[in-house]
Amino acid sequence: MLSFKNDYSEGACEEIMQALMKTNLNQTIGYGCDEICQEAKTAIQNKLHNHACDIHFLVGGTQTNQIVISSALRPYEAVIAADTGHINVHETGAIEATGHKVLISESKDGKVLPFGIEDVMKLHTDEHMVKPKMVYISNATETGSVYTKQELLELREVCDRYDLYLYMDGARFPMALMSNDSDVIFEDLTSIFDVFYLGGTKCGALFGEAVVIVCDALKTDFRYSIKQRGAMLAKGRLLGVQFLELFKNDCYERLASHANEMAQELQNGCIKMGMQMLAPSSTNQLFPILSNEKKEQLEKYCLFEDWKIIDEDHTAIRFVTSWATRKEDVDTLLKILRNLYA
Amino acid sequence: MLSFKNDYSEGACEEIMQALMKTNLNQTIGYGCDEICQEAKTAIQNKLHNHACDIHFLVGGTQTNQIVISSALRPYEAVIAADTGHINVHETGAIEATGHKVLISESKDGKVLPFGIEDVMKLHTDEHMVKPKMVYISNATETGSVYTKQELLELREVCDRYDLYLYMDGARFPMALMSNDSDVIFEDLTSIFDVFYLGGTKCGALFGEAVVIVCDALKTDFRYSIKQRGAMLAKGRLLGVQFLELFKNDCYERLASHANEMAQELQNGCIKMGMQMLAPSSTNQLFPILSNEKKEQLEKYCLFEDWKIIDEDHTAIRFVTSWATRKEDVDTLLKILRNLYA
Amino acid sequence: MLSFKNDYSEGACEEIMQALMKTNLNQTIGYGCDEICQEAKTAIQNKLHNHACDIHFLVGGTQTNQIVISSALRPYEAVIAADTGHINVHETGAIEATGHKVLISESKDGKVLPFGIEDVMKLHTDEHMVKPKMVYISNATETGSVYTKQELLELREVCDRYDLYLYMDGARFPMALMSNDSDVIFEDLTSIFDVFYLGGTKCGALFGEAVVIVCDALKTDFRYSIKQRGAMLAKGRLLGVQFLELFKNDCYERLASHANEMAQELQNGCIKMGMQMLAPSSTNQLFPILSNEKKEQLEKYCLFEDWKIIDEDHTAIRFVTSWATRKEDVDTLLKILRNLYA
Amino acid sequence: MLSFKNDYSEGACEEIMQALMKTNLNQTIGYGCDEICQEAKTAIQNKLHNHACDIHFLVGGTQTNQIVISSALRPYEAVIAADTGHINVHETGAIEATGHKVLISESKDGKVLPFGIEDVMKLHTDEHMVKPKMVYISNATETGSVYTKQELLELREVCDRYDLYLYMDGARFPMALMSNDSDVIFEDLTSIFDVFYLGGTKCGALFGEAVVIVCDALKTDFRYSIKQRGAMLAKGRLLGVQFLELFKNDCYERLASHANEMAQELQNGCIKMGMQMLAPSSTNQLFPILSNEKKEQLEKYCLFEDWKIIDEDHTAIRFVTSWATRKEDVDTLLKILRNLYA
Repeated sequence: MLSFKNDYSEGACEEIMQALMKTNLNQTIGYGCDEICQEAKTAIQNKLHNHACDIHFLVGGTQTNQIVISSALRPYEAVIAADTGHINVHETGAIEATGHKVLISESKDGKVLPFGIEDVMKLHTDEHMVKPKMVYISNATETGSVYTKQELLELREVCDRYDLYLYMDGARFPMALMSNDSDVIFEDLTSIFDVFYLGGTKCGALFGEAVVIVCDALKTDFRYSIKQRGAMLAKGRLLGVQFLELFKNDCYERLASHANEMAQELQNGCIKMGMQMLAPSSTNQLFPILSNEKKEQLEKYCLFEDWKIIDEDHTAIRFVTSWATRKEDVDTLLKILRNLYA
Repeated sequence: MLSFKNDYSEGACEEIMQALMKTNLNQTIGYGCDEICQEAKTAIQNKLHNHACDIHFLVGGTQTNQIVISSALRPYEAVIAADTGHINVHETGAIEATGHKVLISESKDGKVLPFGIEDVMKLHTDEHMVKPKMVYISNATETGSVYTKQELLELREVCDRYDLYLYMDGARFPMALMSNDSDVIFEDLTSIFDVFYLGGTKCGALFGEAVVIVCDALKTDFRYSIKQRGAMLAKGRLLGVQFLELFKNDCYERLASHANEMAQELQNGCIKMGMQMLAPSSTNQLFPILSNEKKEQLEKYCLFEDWKIIDEDHTAIRFVTSWATRKEDVDTLLKILRNLYA
Repeated sequence: MLSFKNDYSEGACEEIMQALMKTNLNQTIGYGCDEICQEAKTAIQNKLHNHACDIHFLVGGTQTNQIVISSALRPYEAVIAADTGHINVHETGAIEATGHKVLISESKDGKVLPFGIEDVMKLHTDEHMVKPKMVYISNATETGSVYTKQELLELREVCDRYDLYLYMDGARFPMALMSNDSDVIFEDLTSIFDVFYLGGTKCGALFGEAVVIVCDALKTDFRYSIKQRGAMLAKGRLLGVQFLELFKNDCYERLASHANEMAQELQNGCIKMGMQMLAPSSTNQLFPILSNEKKEQLEKYCLFEDWKIIDEDHTAIRFVTSWATRKEDVDTLLKILRNLYA
Repeated sequence: MLSFKNDYSEGACEEIMQALMKTNLNQTIGYGCDEICQEAKTAIQNKLHNHACDIHFLVGGTQTNQIVISSALRPYEAVIAADTGHINVHETGAIEATGHKVLISESKDGKVLPFGIEDVMKLHTDEHMVKPKMVYISNATETGSVYTKQELLELREVCDRYDLYLYMDGARFPMALMSNDSDVIFEDLTSIFDVFYLGGTKCGALFGEAVVIVCDALKTDFRYSIKQRGAMLAKGRLLGVQFLELFKNDCYERLASHANEMAQELQNGCIKMGMQMLAPSSTNQLFPILSNEKKEQLEKYCLFEDWKIIDEDHTAIRFVTSWATRKEDVDTLLKILRNLYA
């Protein structure tokens, strides 16, 4: 059966698998202190045009959000997010489990709005309420949208004004980077964010997220936090091996571009046949709206996720493409859809 | 340089690497709900001769201890361990980070003693103190020793008497299983322990630990705990693929036997040349005592860990072998040592 | 200066002060295990017509909410509340500090709505999200409104349907009880709620809240939770002494009635002179809307709280009366207001 | 029946009761922001000869330890204590409940030893272990002993060397202060400790502990921590009223002296009749060793605590005197003992 269910259905890209095979019997010291990890960190720093940032490799996204946020905040401090934010909905209270409240800011298309942050700050004025100290955004967002550089600079400005850390969940940052709607480039990141992560899991790696810490105050003892949260991989070099490949020869960008292109081809096809989209997308997630009858028929041929009930008879579903999506599968899906819509 | 520093210096055994390559582009659903994980769980249940237990795959040991323990205990409940227990010393307070105290029981050679547990229970009598509710042991222990079946049954008895869960950290259980000093077999495990894990990281896998939950009360909602602690791997099938290989054709036992054999060969050589051992070992960790002068010379040729200061002039060091240790490296190390001791 | 700022501006009612003086040099055992506490618990059980419930005395409201909720929930479980709920806004993340998410249900006038709970339940379906397990309401609510018995029974029904605990924060329950809008009586409480507390701080005591646990599952080891959260008063009998007085001779009801009557007198006066109220109130909190100009003038004579910005020129303020409010102070305040509105 | 069970069996000293009565109907703003609290803080600062320190009033000792320690430490940091330390044994894991490990230092007579701290520091060297950051002592200790100024200065020195906060639990500091074995004076405290508390509960107050924060880094947002842990008393002025009385006219010292004197009289009598003490005491706790037979007889006349099993036939028990202990009760107890020992 076809699957457009998510962008972590397959293993890793060929380059990574080969590198894992090649280095398999090499002996290295553990916990990410090896030379391959060091090399991978330098490769990322080169891409960012910033060699003063700290880089740490973690295994997964929820883990990364939990460690970054709990490491940055004092017990009574809180993080601001969109109501659709991954940390607010889809992490089983991982942030609260470390003692911190997630505050909701007004948002649009999954994007946090500067005045939404301001509103939260104005409401939290004394010790009877939590103290907001960080803004969490994801880019691309959970709904597939991307921030423009101007939008990010406006968030930075409001964070500066209120002494807030600005943190980007970059699980799908490569797709944002390569999106036609985004003018953000790698070199922008360390001047905009205090801390962010570049996702590996959804862009060619078996697993892995690269945390980049820009703000000095957040650098202190970060490895203690990694270990305490159970996230220090014994064979840490596995993360170095993977990120080294991703940041060689623009592999990361190439994989993300492929995912985006497959999505655009699919989206164009859908629109051409008159399907409505919940919102246009320039990344690898699409949210077409189907009648429940058509949705039911489609389920016979293809895996996907239900996203949102639109009305009694219609549902927005989610198609996700990835670095591994094959053009022939997109074509097949479009053919199936055309049959449904004929 | 030679390395006898630990048992996670290399990648994975050949069978696992091949299986990862072979399944790499297969599409599966995420988070360990795929068929390969299911197959691997059945393979483990077969080995345990118990199909009523729940099995969950996690990435690493500290993570596993944290999730199992915090999931089992109410906030004011505590876990009992040896002072050398991994959760007490080497997990950066991961258990306390989830709110639970680690209580120390008297132990011998790294092994918790039944009367040590009784002493703890007698001291904790009311609500002004934590309530002990679980006993944590590791087998093989942090110091390389193993429990006999009789010793485990005695722990079980005292746990039953005081209504305590008995939990085994099996990061190196395969080495204990294959040790000449142990009469424990796979079939014993689910009748002795309420919950335990079988280590993959230190026995042939890239990473991975298989949690086996026997006690029904501990099964409820365990996947919520996994997710909340940031430990639910997106491409969960990677764990299934690896454990399926380990539990095929006695691969797991074979890898552990190799590690033990390499250690015994090394130990025999050491003893033959008159070196003293901190304690005899039947598993893959050895603790020879060297003069500091000889230790310094050895450091030029071989990586190992300092374990314990014996006196002003002597230190116990640690050699660890693994499934990947080459016989020629053992021979080379013995040759170097013979030169030092000549 | 007049103060209508809150209902904890004064000490305790005369009966309590006398009882504290009288028992001051009596020797009792500590931590609430004394006979006076036992007597006070029986007095409360008598009032509730239920002698199977457990009763514990705590010092303050946030403390009580934190202990009740964290004691009831497993780590990944969450509590549902109105967005105006005290635990959501005014407790500095005390619930999250114990690891639990506060989920927001749709509400009206500060009251949680049954279908709001249903909506939350429908959205939280698997282990990627927290698991809602408790509904928190306050009665009277933070906005002064009260639940009818019918409304409470409907909440009970939805809680039964979804296996949720129903918990009432009764910091101002006596005012709800004595409100003209409420048909709830003491005898109803233990059949509707799994756990609730009866507030002392805001109804005549120096401090103190009486937790009543109806549901057996929530009774286990509750004193451990009290102690672990730092809430076990050494001289616990101070709480017993106070609650014994409150539950003697309808003292509790009488004090609450006085607070309500003073508020009604004030409200009637306000309405008569044409002031608009944010919502009508039958308890001891009033929320008149003033022009900012008038508000500024009033601040010269009287302490009160700003509650909500209505528009650029108007603000809802809060007047609170208490068991200690003097009729002459209400008269004086009305006179001042009449001057402003003349 | 006589009670020498503890020093919190009675209410408050006469001065405090009168002040509570006198101020009872005064209206003040809540949460300790009132003028009486301010006055009490100034009185304490005067006594300490230091007006730069911050002072906060809390209700009880476990609460205070929990808030001070959790507020000072980052999540992976730990606090060092004697194994007999109150936070290690008698607070139901309150410190661990906030995520922090309690590390045990070698101690003597309940007093932490400088080289014990050094040993802990030498063992905790990297991110696989918690990071010790604070030393907790109690003075007087749980076993009635007191630190000399020289001993405290040596602790300060080792804390400076290892960048550790030094914190004193002063639940029984007044008894230490007035002890014949102590040369510490009030003026010493702020130059030795980063943070400490002066106990009210055990020295004349109904309840209350005064936290004194010397170190600037620990001052930030302390009220947020108080509120988040449920410890901000609504009628905060109750704490101010009490501490103001205690720090007027040397009331605090006088009450402590009385407790010590009663204990010394009792101790002298015990020794004179040949009873053995577990250790000599110069404060208000005594630990005589009795045969179990005599202990059983004594239980008919007097409440006390069993402290420690000495051997099969002997037990050390604990007598505690307080500000409220009557000379005639000491005489009666001595008479009973003399009869037992006749």
